[in-house]
Amino acid sequence: MRKFIKGNEAVTVGALYAGCEIYFGYPITPQSEVLEYLAREAEQRTGMVVLQAESEIAAINMVYGAAGTGKKVWTSSSSPGISLMQEGISYIASAELPCLIVNVQRGGPGLGTIQPAQSDYFQTVKGGGHGDYHMIVLAPATVQEMSDFVKLSFELAFKYRNPVMILTDGALGQMMEKVEFFEQQERTFEKLDWATVGKPKNRESNVITSLHIKPDKMELINIHLQKKYRQIEEKEIRYEEIMCDDADYIITAFGLVARICTRAAELAREKGIKVGVFRPISLYPFPYENIKSFNGKIKGILDVEMNAGQMIEDVKLSVEGKTPVEFYGRMGGIVPTPEEICEALENHIAGGRL
Amino acid sequence: MRKFIKGNEAVTVGALYAGCEIYFGYPITPQSEVLEYLAREAEQRTGMVVLQAESEIAAINMVYGAAGTGKKVWTSSSSPGISLMQEGISYIASAELPCLIVNVQRGGPGLGTIQPAQSDYFQTVKGGGHGDYHMIVLAPATVQEMSDFVKLSFELAFKYRNPVMILTDGALGQMMEKVEFFEQQERTFEKLDWATVGKPKNRESNVITSLHIKPDKMELINIHLQKKYRQIEEKEIRYEEIMCDDADYIITAFGLVARICTRAAELAREKGIKVGVFRPISLYPFPYENIKSFNGKIKGILDVEMNAGQMIEDVKLSVEGKTPVEFYGRMGGIVPTPEEICEALENHIAGGRL
Amino acid sequence: MRKFIKGNEAVTVGALYAGCEIYFGYPITPQSEVLEYLAREAEQRTGMVVLQAESEIAAINMVYGAAGTGKKVWTSSSSPGISLMQEGISYIASAELPCLIVNVQRGGPGLGTIQPAQSDYFQTVKGGGHGDYHMIVLAPATVQEMSDFVKLSFELAFKYRNPVMILTDGALGQMMEKVEFFEQQERTFEKLDWATVGKPKNRESNVITSLHIKPDKMELINIHLQKKYRQIEEKEIRYEEIMCDDADYIITAFGLVARICTRAAELAREKGIKVGVFRPISLYPFPYENIKSFNGKIKGILDVEMNAGQMIEDVKLSVEGKTPVEFYGRMGGIVPTPEEICEALENHIAGGRL
Amino acid sequence: MRKFIKGNEAVTVGALYAGCEIYFGYPITPQSEVLEYLAREAEQRTGMVVLQAESEIAAINMVYGAAGTGKKVWTSSSSPGISLMQEGISYIASAELPCLIVNVQRGGPGLGTIQPAQSDYFQTVKGGGHGDYHMIVLAPATVQEMSDFVKLSFELAFKYRNPVMILTDGALGQMMEKVEFFEQQERTFEKLDWATVGKPKNRESNVITSLHIKPDKMELINIHLQKKYRQIEEKEIRYEEIMCDDADYIITAFGLVARICTRAAELAREKGIKVGVFRPISLYPFPYENIKSFNGKIKGILDVEMNAGQMIEDVKLSVEGKTPVEFYGRMGGIVPTPEEICEALENHIAGGRL
Repeated sequence: MRKFIKGNEAVTVGALYAGCEIYFGYPITPQSEVLEYLAREAEQRTGMVVLQAESEIAAINMVYGAAGTGKKVWTSSSSPGISLMQEGISYIASAELPCLIVNVQRGGPGLGTIQPAQSDYFQTVKGGGHGDYHMIVLAPATVQEMSDFVKLSFELAFKYRNPVMILTDGALGQMMEKVEFFEQQERTFEKLDWATVGKPKNRESNVITSLHIKPDKMELINIHLQKKYRQIEEKEIRYEEIMCDDADYIITAFGLVARICTRAAELAREKGIKVGVFRPISLYPFPYENIKSFNGKIKGILDVEMNAGQMIEDVKLSVEGKTPVEFYGRMGGIVPTPEEICEALENHIAGGRL
Repeated sequence: MRKFIKGNEAVTVGALYAGCEIYFGYPITPQSEVLEYLAREAEQRTGMVVLQAESEIAAINMVYGAAGTGKKVWTSSSSPGISLMQEGISYIASAELPCLIVNVQRGGPGLGTIQPAQSDYFQTVKGGGHGDYHMIVLAPATVQEMSDFVKLSFELAFKYRNPVMILTDGALGQMMEKVEFFEQQERTFEKLDWATVGKPKNRESNVITSLHIKPDKMELINIHLQKKYRQIEEKEIRYEEIMCDDADYIITAFGLVARICTRAAELAREKGIKVGVFRPISLYPFPYENIKSFNGKIKGILDVEMNAGQMIEDVKLSVEGKTPVEFYGRMGGIVPTPEEICEALENHIAGGRL
Repeated sequence: MRKFIKGNEAVTVGALYAGCEIYFGYPITPQSEVLEYLAREAEQRTGMVVLQAESEIAAINMVYGAAGTGKKVWTSSSSPGISLMQEGISYIASAELPCLIVNVQRGGPGLGTIQPAQSDYFQTVKGGGHGDYHMIVLAPATVQEMSDFVKLSFELAFKYRNPVMILTDGALGQMMEKVEFFEQQERTFEKLDWATVGKPKNRESNVITSLHIKPDKMELINIHLQKKYRQIEEKEIRYEEIMCDDADYIITAFGLVARICTRAAELAREKGIKVGVFRPISLYPFPYENIKSFNGKIKGILDVEMNAGQMIEDVKLSVEGKTPVEFYGRMGGIVPTPEEICEALENHIAGGRL
Repeated sequence: MRKFIKGNEAVTVGALYAGCEIYFGYPITPQSEVLEYLAREAEQRTGMVVLQAESEIAAINMVYGAAGTGKKVWTSSSSPGISLMQEGISYIASAELPCLIVNVQRGGPGLGTIQPAQSDYFQTVKGGGHGDYHMIVLAPATVQEMSDFVKLSFELAFKYRNPVMILTDGALGQMMEKVEFFEQQERTFEKLDWATVGKPKNRESNVITSLHIKPDKMELINIHLQKKYRQIEEKEIRYEEIMCDDADYIITAFGLVARICTRAAELAREKGIKVGVFRPISLYPFPYENIKSFNGKIKGILDVEMNAGQMIEDVKLSVEGKTPVEFYGRMGGIVPTPEEICEALENHIAGGRL
């Protein structure tokens, strides 16, 4: 099916096609379309549970409970609401349950604006909650990916029994583009051997918990988690290279900003500067090695983000001081233009920093 | 005054000496002594407000409200409870209010154990809440510092109108040592021109908010915040160097672990390996330049943490690939011994990695 | 279908047969079987929404929201949990929405015991919430009625657009008896002209609210409500008379206690005292006239309750001083025996009070 | 001290004079002046704890906790907020703790209006929470009494270890009158032998709870409570008689309405109808006997309330059918005029009903 549709709606339709069975959420701009659209759709496609919880904290804990049954469950919110979910996310990661969380970022910190931003990168990728854990993080750049990544998220979430976050922003959430939807996935879940859906007589009860009083038990769980994360880091890196082959300079950017940077790169090329764009799609696992492989081939990297400079730390960790890395960013809900990015790049080159 | 006292009590007595006027909190092991001790003390030292809130979310929002009056206000919790405070912390940082938050870390993720850990470094230093903001973060290594840093925290909090976190752990919280307390600070606050304590006729109302609908306004606020952070990064770096002058190898470690590493360094020196310990005291601002200055002088760095490797990213960002950095860590509530750290160092040297 | 089953389960199976579509609740002894049974059944009979809410307050407000769509929605709890729902119940009554609330009473006040009691009569019948409103209240005396009254409750709830409460107790909830279940009712609801399920083009939006700022508007709503209550009082009185025809004394009692009183009446008759039992089934509307009609025919009334004397006020209001009314009650979770009731009656007669 | 002041402020100043040490509350119209006034005063009179809680539920539970220490603690709200407190009130009554709750009633049910009403009589007097318990209930009719009854409330609350409610309404809360304040009471509390303020070595710990698993224990507590209530019913009845001595007709009314009825009685007397007003001041304990004593002396009673008829049940219980009782009421926030009350009385007389 093809549809001209908003990003927030594409996520939602994607969830319906992906066979999601349960959604818990609480309204917040700029992602309120999700709940609104779902409420309408659930009316027609009976049997799906869509519930406006008492708060974001209630929502994420309901996700925790429902995920334990092995059903496809998801939630969505925007920056402040996601902060409220940090305890719950840590619990879900520790208990190793699959689920999808969508963050349609807005400008912060605090209540901030309702305009788009990318200033939750650190929270999302480094661990907003307590303890050593990782969500798998996917950053779509198009409305098409807003839908596609829902399907991918559930595949990864169930493969690794791990929460997945789609990290997007208010601009992509509100933007309309044509989307080709994937085929309807089955809603009914196969009985999963870890799910708590009634104990057959021939096995012990499944227990889902994140509480382990004995530290040696808790360390074993951490060792197991870290092993899983190494596997994810090995197998699930996703990224996109645009005009990178002959590039003298690389712009690193994620999400919608990568598209703006592509236009900036074209503007630069018109002026004779050979620029490529490297877009990490999976923010965790981060494509360290892929960026590192530019060492020796390029003169410098401009990292562009809608924040004060967050992913740039991972870019710097990638190149280990062997390629200069500079930053251009806008904050508080401002979306940068291709022109200002191109100009920032030219200034850094002219200044001898790149 | 001198006292043989637990770490959690030292923080509390420190708060009384520092002239703290208000505490809001919710009990959680391993920091429940704070509230218990305060409840007793507040009985005798009338006039201090000590309130067990309905939850950690209530507590941090009460801190937000009280901080707006310019009073010395603080809260404390342990890892899961701190996760619940992330939205509130982002609001307080955005509204530029002074306060103190103490995190007595326990093993995670999830409910985890009640044993000590350092696995909230990322959450604390990189931003557990949404948006671009920083707390000033101090990591005590002794019970003495547990008390001293309370005084320092309030000085920094009011100087920069910024939340300060003391990041410690369950072992230091429960450990007893002799503490020399500083002199009693004044409780009554001087009228601060930004505080919301009644509007005199000759000025406009003070408004404390983190909501700014217009993105250009919000960007200006972010620019102002970032300028403040640059100032903090310039002036407020604190660290300790132990036996670093002639060292061939440096162990980086924070908090209690730095003391264990000092013993490990002594063990190594007994075996003829010249090892020093570098202890960041302020985790934000992080002493990047001070660690960088080891480049060319040492053979390698072993970073030791009670987690899966978090501060190591900042250590690597410091040396920019010019000094090898390896990691040794324990997780889930296990405290490493000097012997195993020394052995880990020897193995890395023997394996040619350091 | 016939089944040997607990009272709490009979309510639950009754709800499934009655075509209930949604249940929100929070566990509390002695009615936890409801949620447990539902969780199991909902697994097999897909499409029914069963949700453990964050609290009783969340549950009743979810009931409020769901009831607005015209679906069959219900909740259940025990005494303290029902107290938490009082604001929500007042809202639902004011907004004139149909729903079912089951109170499996336990001994109070406060947390009290988990044993059976009837001490929420006043709360239920006189208005535990604020404002002038009434729930329709049904008090079952058998496990069979526990099931039957669910069907009846929804018929009344939808007929009058009014919340209905089944007021029962922990003893009946835990007691097992044979139940003949009624036929499966349709789950799908006919489109109701007041429900908020999407506005057709040819009418105004349905608005469900209990907020009316203008007092004359609010008085009109109250006049409308009172008119409805008069209608209910006229048409929906239900009661049972047992051995009343030739009785010299009447015992008034509701719920399970009425059965114990029936045995007490038999004991009394064996001793030559002609005793009947009058059991109000609908507590609101209360059968004032029916009790009043005993005036002049009997020598006295003994009101028996598992509380300190609550329904007795309505009994006294019925007889208007023309028949003596005495009381026998047990409190705090104690169930009276037929013997002690019979003895109490004999004592009152011997003492000349009846 | 004498002051021209609003009713809501008179309660608040009264609380300061009564030596109240702690207030927890949450804002709601029409009683928001309480918290606002307190916030200002507490600034100047340091040492009093004034806290805006997270919700009414938080507030009443904080009252529960603070009352356990034997301090003078109070809260206030309006109708919907009071409904949210019902569980907590039942707990406090069961645990036998002194405190003051002020209900500045508004029109209901539901969110209703913000205009005055008396429709929470049943909730207040019969038991809005679960279980057999009573608050002592005082209904002021003047701004002077709004202040005086605070002092009286604390005397009664501590004498009987029982929660006291001042039941007033939005009109009296907003009305301004001259108030003569009583003398400042001591704030510091004498050590009470039941309070939980630190255990001396020579006695057992005081335990404050409302949970008693064993029903025979819980029954003993109920027997004790009922004995206390009988004592209160014997000693603490308060009422006012106005022009009752020669009256042929009595108007019963409480609170502000009693004053309007006094004017209505004067109007009636101008027309030759001898009317008196009987005003219950304590609604619990209710002056049954005092009203009963009119039997045989008067021709009839008109009960007037700002609700659909609630106190009338207690009036009818008083006269036991021996004096006709009719009702006149306004609902939803409408205050009746003396003229319409007088007319209602005349009509009832003309119609032969009185």
